[in-house]
Amino acid sequence: MFPEEVIITQNINTLLRDLSLETNYSNIAVLVDENTSQYCLPIIEKNLPDFQLIKINSGEENKTLDTCSFIWHELTRLKFDRKSLLINLGGGVIGDMGGFCASTYKRGIDFVNIPTTLLAQVDASVGGKLGIDFEGFKNHIGVFRKPDCVIIDSCFLNTLPEREIRSGFAEVIKHSLIADESYWEKLIQKDFYHQEWFDIIQHSVALKKNVVKKDPTEKNIRKILNFGHTIGHAIETYYLNKKENRLLHGEAIAIGMICETYLSSTILDLPESSVKEIEDYIIAQYGKSSIEKDEIKEIVELCSQDKKNENELINFSLLENIGNAVFNKFVEQDLITKAILKYREI
Amino acid sequence: MFPEEVIITQNINTLLRDLSLETNYSNIAVLVDENTSQYCLPIIEKNLPDFQLIKINSGEENKTLDTCSFIWHELTRLKFDRKSLLINLGGGVIGDMGGFCASTYKRGIDFVNIPTTLLAQVDASVGGKLGIDFEGFKNHIGVFRKPDCVIIDSCFLNTLPEREIRSGFAEVIKHSLIADESYWEKLIQKDFYHQEWFDIIQHSVALKKNVVKKDPTEKNIRKILNFGHTIGHAIETYYLNKKENRLLHGEAIAIGMICETYLSSTILDLPESSVKEIEDYIIAQYGKSSIEKDEIKEIVELCSQDKKNENELINFSLLENIGNAVFNKFVEQDLITKAILKYREI
Repeated sequence: MFPEEVIITQNINTLLRDLSLETNYSNIAVLVDENTSQYCLPIIEKNLPDFQLIKINSGEENKTLDTCSFIWHELTRLKFDRKSLLINLGGGVIGDMGGFCASTYKRGIDFVNIPTTLLAQVDASVGGKLGIDFEGFKNHIGVFRKPDCVIIDSCFLNTLPEREIRSGFAEVIKHSLIADESYWEKLIQKDFYHQEWFDIIQHSVALKKNVVKKDPTEKNIRKILNFGHTIGHAIETYYLNKKENRLLHGEAIAIGMICETYLSSTILDLPESSVKEIEDYIIAQYGKSSIEKDEIKEIVELCSQDKKNENELINFSLLENIGNAVFNKFVEQDLITKAILKYREI
Repeated sequence: MFPEEVIITQNINTLLRDLSLETNYSNIAVLVDENTSQYCLPIIEKNLPDFQLIKINSGEENKTLDTCSFIWHELTRLKFDRKSLLINLGGGVIGDMGGFCASTYKRGIDFVNIPTTLLAQVDASVGGKLGIDFEGFKNHIGVFRKPDCVIIDSCFLNTLPEREIRSGFAEVIKHSLIADESYWEKLIQKDFYHQEWFDIIQHSVALKKNVVKKDPTEKNIRKILNFGHTIGHAIETYYLNKKENRLLHGEAIAIGMICETYLSSTILDLPESSVKEIEDYIIAQYGKSSIEKDEIKEIVELCSQDKKNENELINFSLLENIGNAVFNKFVEQDLITKAILKYREI
């Protein structure tokens, strides 16, 4: 019933009216957190058919099995049958976790994601990775399943704090670095404040779709999307429980991309000029985070729990050149330590 | 790497040796309960490569999110990567829950089911329905995913109490009633004790495979496999928390099939002679269970939470004739009450 898998629109309300969801579903629920309930739901609610609201607390720390239990409990309490629809209105946490709950409730009901953050719009919107964190490990429990539809409208970006948009921008930088040199050249002409978000969303979604189509379950080429994420996820996880130094996903990935750029120069001879260009642009957009020397060991240890590893070697996607990434580059822990030390020296 | 999706063998040890699982997997775990650990694992363990043991408590009451958390925790603690294999050695609970955990750990690792009960061999072995119970509802949370291989050897039946085998036999009876009149005619020549299990497993697996192939996610024809299960599941759920009257799955389905045979005669004019034949054979194999009058209301209420329902009508698969079932027959609660009352009058 949905015309496309991913719809990028500048008028979500007209679109929602035209979809007339009520003709296809027996029940509809909208999953929100306290932020999207306050800032995003009012934008669209008058164009949604009757719906039940399921409200959870925002934040990565709530992307847990306990919150899933609450969502499943609500769907059960509301007597949602298999012809029900769950609309996930929010950022990556809402989309990943709501999608996981929908995919597993009565072995799967339909769900539509309406990503409201730049990060979710350019990253989580494509690829069908769903899931939750478990015992401190990011996205440790989940499934691959595409939403029945993803609806993206850049108007939601106006509801976000700047820091949130900047976090999403890290994935945009990543897309250009791994697969599109001319996109990179275009991005670095402007700083964060002068980017054109609607164009960027279209470009990034198309790029990611193209990669995911070739390898939906990440057996090979899709792994290049993990550039910056092996060390980045470990850093994000490490600081997750440290209230003061908490990093947003993109902020951690920005650090991860710099560290993995160093690995790329060591292992794949990425030219020094490219290393400098990447380092300079990312630092100019994100500044430098402080990582204490005695924190490095645990961060490296966390890298070894990454889902992509095999046989205890740590698996990276690295850059041969700007715009050209390769995957399954297995790296030892010592070299990872060195890369993080090098970041400290900037 | 597996030659077939479902392998029915009379020599599982030779098969396991030939598979040389260790050449394809970085880690292997075997999920067992206290029964299969004691009675089934010894049969095969010398022909398995090095493995870790994950042991849970047997029984439907442990098919919960808490047990999943334990299994996920163990896989995490053992640092299982995506090239790991989980072997589920046990009945339906082990296969359904172990399969669900494997399907969701790091978004999915390979798993092999070795069903050790007749019920799991003829029913859960085919069809990729995985999941757990939630807040008292059977298989409420789960996914559809086929095991990478199912290995069936009837030798495991020798490890079972008679009551367990008899429970599985209910699904065999169901298979014949919904899709194969000559199979039914053959079955009723003999009582439970004189059936030939290896033949029965082959016949039932082939029949179920044939149905599932046409409709893997139960949008239409696969629903016929639910004959006896709408009322049967409700009865099973109702007695789940009553220690004394606890019914095994097949025992509840036997009652469900009789009740739904009555519905078939009311709604689809299933001939009286067939009703009698079905009732007589099932009662001869299972005896009659006592359902108190004041229990019926809650059982009927439970039917309305069945996953197959739409818009609060209760969805049944019923018999037009022996060997010929139809699906999406929506029934009101009053008629269900009548059917259960009629069972009481036998």
